[in-house]
Amino acid sequence: MNESAQTQLTLQDRARDFVERPVVTNSILGIIIFNAVTLGLSTSDTVTQHVGGLLSAVDKLVLTVFVAELALKLFAYRIKFFSSAWNIFDLLVVSVGLLPDRQGLSALRGLRVIRALRLLSVIPQMRKVVQALLDALPGMGAVIVMISIVFYVFGVMATLMYGAAFDEWFGTLGRSLYSLFQIMTLESWSMGIVRPVMEVYPMAWSFFVPFIVITAFSVLNLFIGLLVNTMQSAVEAEAEAEFEQLRDLVRKETDLVDAHVLELHAELKALRQELSAFKGGENGR
Amino acid sequence: MNESAQTQLTLQDRARDFVERPVVTNSILGIIIFNAVTLGLSTSDTVTQHVGGLLSAVDKLVLTVFVAELALKLFAYRIKFFSSAWNIFDLLVVSVGLLPDRQGLSALRGLRVIRALRLLSVIPQMRKVVQALLDALPGMGAVIVMISIVFYVFGVMATLMYGAAFDEWFGTLGRSLYSLFQIMTLESWSMGIVRPVMEVYPMAWSFFVPFIVITAFSVLNLFIGLLVNTMQSAVEAEAEAEFEQLRDLVRKETDLVDAHVLELHAELKALRQELSAFKGGENGR
Amino acid sequence: MNESAQTQLTLQDRARDFVERPVVTNSILGIIIFNAVTLGLSTSDTVTQHVGGLLSAVDKLVLTVFVAELALKLFAYRIKFFSSAWNIFDLLVVSVGLLPDRQGLSALRGLRVIRALRLLSVIPQMRKVVQALLDALPGMGAVIVMISIVFYVFGVMATLMYGAAFDEWFGTLGRSLYSLFQIMTLESWSMGIVRPVMEVYPMAWSFFVPFIVITAFSVLNLFIGLLVNTMQSAVEAEAEAEFEQLRDLVRKETDLVDAHVLELHAELKALRQELSAFKGGENGR
Amino acid sequence: MNESAQTQLTLQDRARDFVERPVVTNSILGIIIFNAVTLGLSTSDTVTQHVGGLLSAVDKLVLTVFVAELALKLFAYRIKFFSSAWNIFDLLVVSVGLLPDRQGLSALRGLRVIRALRLLSVIPQMRKVVQALLDALPGMGAVIVMISIVFYVFGVMATLMYGAAFDEWFGTLGRSLYSLFQIMTLESWSMGIVRPVMEVYPMAWSFFVPFIVITAFSVLNLFIGLLVNTMQSAVEAEAEAEFEQLRDLVRKETDLVDAHVLELHAELKALRQELSAFKGGENGR
Repeated sequence: MNESAQTQLTLQDRARDFVERPVVTNSILGIIIFNAVTLGLSTSDTVTQHVGGLLSAVDKLVLTVFVAELALKLFAYRIKFFSSAWNIFDLLVVSVGLLPDRQGLSALRGLRVIRALRLLSVIPQMRKVVQALLDALPGMGAVIVMISIVFYVFGVMATLMYGAAFDEWFGTLGRSLYSLFQIMTLESWSMGIVRPVMEVYPMAWSFFVPFIVITAFSVLNLFIGLLVNTMQSAVEAEAEAEFEQLRDLVRKETDLVDAHVLELHAELKALRQELSAFKGGENGR
Repeated sequence: MNESAQTQLTLQDRARDFVERPVVTNSILGIIIFNAVTLGLSTSDTVTQHVGGLLSAVDKLVLTVFVAELALKLFAYRIKFFSSAWNIFDLLVVSVGLLPDRQGLSALRGLRVIRALRLLSVIPQMRKVVQALLDALPGMGAVIVMISIVFYVFGVMATLMYGAAFDEWFGTLGRSLYSLFQIMTLESWSMGIVRPVMEVYPMAWSFFVPFIVITAFSVLNLFIGLLVNTMQSAVEAEAEAEFEQLRDLVRKETDLVDAHVLELHAELKALRQELSAFKGGENGR
Repeated sequence: MNESAQTQLTLQDRARDFVERPVVTNSILGIIIFNAVTLGLSTSDTVTQHVGGLLSAVDKLVLTVFVAELALKLFAYRIKFFSSAWNIFDLLVVSVGLLPDRQGLSALRGLRVIRALRLLSVIPQMRKVVQALLDALPGMGAVIVMISIVFYVFGVMATLMYGAAFDEWFGTLGRSLYSLFQIMTLESWSMGIVRPVMEVYPMAWSFFVPFIVITAFSVLNLFIGLLVNTMQSAVEAEAEAEFEQLRDLVRKETDLVDAHVLELHAELKALRQELSAFKGGENGR
Repeated sequence: MNESAQTQLTLQDRARDFVERPVVTNSILGIIIFNAVTLGLSTSDTVTQHVGGLLSAVDKLVLTVFVAELALKLFAYRIKFFSSAWNIFDLLVVSVGLLPDRQGLSALRGLRVIRALRLLSVIPQMRKVVQALLDALPGMGAVIVMISIVFYVFGVMATLMYGAAFDEWFGTLGRSLYSLFQIMTLESWSMGIVRPVMEVYPMAWSFFVPFIVITAFSVLNLFIGLLVNTMQSAVEAEAEAEFEQLRDLVRKETDLVDAHVLELHAELKALRQELSAFKGGENGR
């Protein structure tokens, strides 16, 4: 190892020590909360009129701190930085704040606020809750794919069948998928969409009612699957503990009996020896 | 202890005895029910035209009784009065009736009725049900905080992005939070809100659909967590009882075998003694 | 016992035998299904124009059969007839058809159809399903009472606070309860009711949002309670069977060991006797 | 067996071997996915304007391949082809594409797309998910029949009572059933339907509110039944495994004790023999 590599290593180690220091992580958390508050304040017209410049400056400062923090982390962990989904999440939500703001797009102004979601990635309890939600996803994979296929097929069908007459709802595949999502949530599905469609295509109910029943039933099963999985892990731990207790009990009890049997064994052996000695004595008489 | 302190103590004890006497608590319950009925009657224009004065007088009387009851309880329990959340609840809902009525605010007239919720705090079975509901809350804490953070962040974003164009729905942070709550309950979310917004901001679906999916999924997990907890306590008690039964069975059965083994032991010991005695006899021959 | 009482008893027995005969119950079931179909046909204008008289005659005939059947049952079972909720249900739904029809009230015409619900009381599998639904009710009692109290109190409050300005929704206690039920089902609660109310009373959200949260949470707990109860009975039976198996196993295994121990006992006894005999022989030598 | 039958058999066997070859099933899967994409593209006006002829040709080609595949399967499996519900499903969704297209019915154009649902029948994981959904149906049979009876009776009643005044919603039995389905999903039930009906029939709430409560409660029970069944199968497997473990444990432990007891037995037998030999020696002295 040459000297430069050694120095670099030292700098990297120092950077890691620094970003992992509780006072640093707590400060970052404090800044996130403070930034969430200032972002909230920036929604008020009165506040922006009076201290808009200050809020803007604070926002730029906070962004600088976040960028510095993430740069330091990137330097400290190198490629391992990307092995944590939380880091990637932080990087993404902070990057949004760096997008150019010249067009004065209100969408971008709003998107900056997504940075406050770092509260979920920085507070350990929140991380746990989000992790638990994400952990539930893989078990739902197959049903989600199935629902996606059903959505796609019904979306294409709706576009081809009702697109011409109801351009706003089913004019393109995208619009159809959005409308079907709305129908799946049961929002205004009948009064808002299906009844008007039925005025042109009287049999439209035979397309939409099965769609509702199929998706409702699939979502129900998704939910039941999720519930049974969660329940099972909970019951499994319970059963495991009970089994341990029973095993210990059975072992203890049988070991006691066995000990007495073995004692009996010793006793009998002693008896045999005595008898043998006695016999020897008799014989030797 | 001087005499005055002793007298005071006696008065306090007497007050406690009095408010805890079944006839008193039952009378209070009766008055609450009676008051609930008179409050219900006061919603009828016909009734208030004919016996409005009477109803008003009854209401003042009932309020006086409640105030006297709570004052007595406060005197009887002192600071311990506030250790029961039910007492604080009673104090709050009764206090509402004492607020000045001069402006003739219909809101205040209505708020008095909240006093009838004392039915929940006075009937033991209702107390149990409410307690069970409240007991479920702590387990939901982390998810509720998470949903709150998501609400706040999406609320600020919606205000900044859509507030200018849709003042009624997203004009202030408060309005945005209310609209997001409405969207979370799926009420008119698409036809009422998101479709109009999409006419101005065509990509608005990419803000609202993820919001719906995230909150629906979080609420679902809240519910699953609650269910698994309740189920687990129930199953735990069940498993505990079964374990007790099995433990008793295993003990009884092994104790029986052990008893027989010990008997054998005794038998063998007797045999050895006999043999020893016989040997002694032989030897001593 | 005089002769007349004896004859009456015989008639009663015969009536009971008759109404319980499978061919009779099946015929009644057949008539109910046939009547359900004719009632369904009577909804069609074309059918009533052509064979309306026939349908009406059939209906009168069916009603006569039902009345005769119930009269026979009443005669056969006397007061015990009323011990079955199903009989009372049958009596009620059939009686509706006997109400005078002169005013040509469409409501009464429609109510006759409720008779077809006898399908639920006559088909044994349906009876079981309905019974299972009803069995779930007692366990829900306390929560239902709680929700009722909450509904009543919020209903009175809404009437007093919003009744004057929104007569159609909250003008009377009845209208308020209906509107609150609608709000509990989340139907148009915001766009349809709360937003218009908020235009007059800007703080109305602080009345309706807690109401939604409280009732949603209560209904959720109702559901969880129901689920845990059902689950527990299912798991209990399961655990019971498993316990039986384990008990048999433990007994069989320990009995085997015990049998061997007892055999040992016999062996040892034999040894002792032999020894004793031998000793006796020695001593007697 | 004559020669022609033998040749036919050989051809059938070859056909079976061919359609079951992985390369063939995978090709079919590839074609289904490719066709799903081309069907999706055909929803875009721009695409159809430029390559509409190509898409149409591709569609005819794909249909030919599917027909050939199914014909081959029919030839290969004969009557056994119909023993798999998946084959019947494939046959139906492919047949839709063969319906004449001359009227240019957009409904038929759209229905062709249903063919893409073959993704569910061809991908094994999807088959499993769909199978799991269908397996849940029989357990729900009785409740579904009950809900159907309730729907029919309420449908007939609604038609007779409200059909005259509200032709669009309750004019025929079919319209009533559709409207009741809408009401069951809680979509616009009050603002859209029941409030307008109540303006003509003020007591209509006493028809619709019980309907909502009954169907909601029935669907809830359907769901609970489904959940308990799924849960029970999961718990049963768990309990079975635990029981196996406990059985093995109890056997192992008691076998150990038993082995020691039997050893003792052997020891005792040896002792008796020795004693007997000794006695014989004594006696023979």
